[in-house]
Amino acid sequence: MAPSAASNWQLVERLADAAGQVIRPHFRRLDAIELKADATPVTVADKAAELAMRELLARERPADGILGEEFEPVACTSGWLWVLDPIDGTKAFTAGKPLFTTLIALVEEDRPRLGCIDQPFLRERWIGDGQNATFGGREVVRKTPPPLERAVLSSTAPEMFQDEADRAAVARLQRATAYTSWGGDAYAYGLLALGSIDIVVEAGLKPFDLAPLAPIIEAVGGKVTDWQGRPLSLASDGRILAAGSALLHEQALKALNG
Amino acid sequence: MAPSAASNWQLVERLADAAGQVIRPHFRRLDAIELKADATPVTVADKAAELAMRELLARERPADGILGEEFEPVACTSGWLWVLDPIDGTKAFTAGKPLFTTLIALVEEDRPRLGCIDQPFLRERWIGDGQNATFGGREVVRKTPPPLERAVLSSTAPEMFQDEADRAAVARLQRATAYTSWGGDAYAYGLLALGSIDIVVEAGLKPFDLAPLAPIIEAVGGKVTDWQGRPLSLASDGRILAAGSALLHEQALKALNG
Repeated sequence: MAPSAASNWQLVERLADAAGQVIRPHFRRLDAIELKADATPVTVADKAAELAMRELLARERPADGILGEEFEPVACTSGWLWVLDPIDGTKAFTAGKPLFTTLIALVEEDRPRLGCIDQPFLRERWIGDGQNATFGGREVVRKTPPPLERAVLSSTAPEMFQDEADRAAVARLQRATAYTSWGGDAYAYGLLALGSIDIVVEAGLKPFDLAPLAPIIEAVGGKVTDWQGRPLSLASDGRILAAGSALLHEQALKALNG
Repeated sequence: MAPSAASNWQLVERLADAAGQVIRPHFRRLDAIELKADATPVTVADKAAELAMRELLARERPADGILGEEFEPVACTSGWLWVLDPIDGTKAFTAGKPLFTTLIALVEEDRPRLGCIDQPFLRERWIGDGQNATFGGREVVRKTPPPLERAVLSSTAPEMFQDEADRAAVARLQRATAYTSWGGDAYAYGLLALGSIDIVVEAGLKPFDLAPLAPIIEAVGGKVTDWQGRPLSLASDGRILAAGSALLHEQALKALNG
């Protein structure tokens, strides 16, 4: 018998709890003198948090697959795949900025059904299943976004845009919007769901980073695709455009592609 | 009789408390429908927080001067000038990123004697007087920074660097360091004091933004100057280079100036 939606949602909460418990003591731990030369606090926390989530899944869902950033994939016999990124935003983590997150997604037939963005230091958590999204356990209702020229754009870093064409596309989008707030990693997609950010444009994201986003953003009436307007999948090219409504997404996509 | 150092320190705490109390309810207040068209939550919070600080100063230090971002300067007869920026990082504030800060400095003869960086939502606070710095009331001891090539660089936004020469200088510094974390505003200088960020490079800062930095950064053995290596003053050109030690600052200054 397939697990119920409620039990999947509950398991996502427990996975995020398990990861957060492991990660918190490593954040801003600047006296990590006993670590080996190549073991920074972030790599130690990353691996330990993924192991904690994998152990929980091995106990609770031995037939489910696992795709995680730090260890080998676990094959799937149930049709369900868990996609784990214990610490998204490792540069923010190392720099001491509390905007790194733990990302968890439950994927069925290459389609994410459930997504979680968790900030363990601030204890802020978004979960969405495409129909409903919660922030701190309370349902999120996003206000209608402003028109493109008054929209707040966010992006993690200009270095994400490696080739000239990508940089030109992002510069067009920046000119078409009110202003750009830099930094944020996946935390910015949570703020997009809350309505304080209207558009996020990024590139170079990994499948681990993409999977949890659509179930949260679509649940509040937003839209997230690649730069061609195609739905995200584990095979996407890492370029991403998210907006607070389908209309704003259409306008942003047009600006991005000139 | 001049106020004691202890009473100045205590007054800085009270000013930050007063500003934070006013600012917190406005953060992520997305239903601000009763506001006038030009009154965003950030401008309302900005003005109200500066007024709260000015009222406290008018009561406690009627002879001191005030230089604040939102209202007219108050002339000084005591030799002491309070420099106030109720919300540094207004874009971060609007975007819902909890890295905006309240900045407070006490300046004597164009020299900042006391500085405060306060994050009211996270209730994180740095205060420094050039000799001692505290974070959350506990003394900060910064570890020795790594060499330049392993240093963590931070900067708020690439748009800060308006002309080609500035952009080239920052690109040189980026290549010479380990990596760049974007976003953070004045919060990043607090993280530099803690030791999770090693270098901050910025431009376009206002006197309000500069004044509190040196008393905090110098107290932990760091150094902060303009891009020519000159001490900051209220007349600085807004370009700033901060590092976790004098040695690292010297190396960064060399990389910046090619």
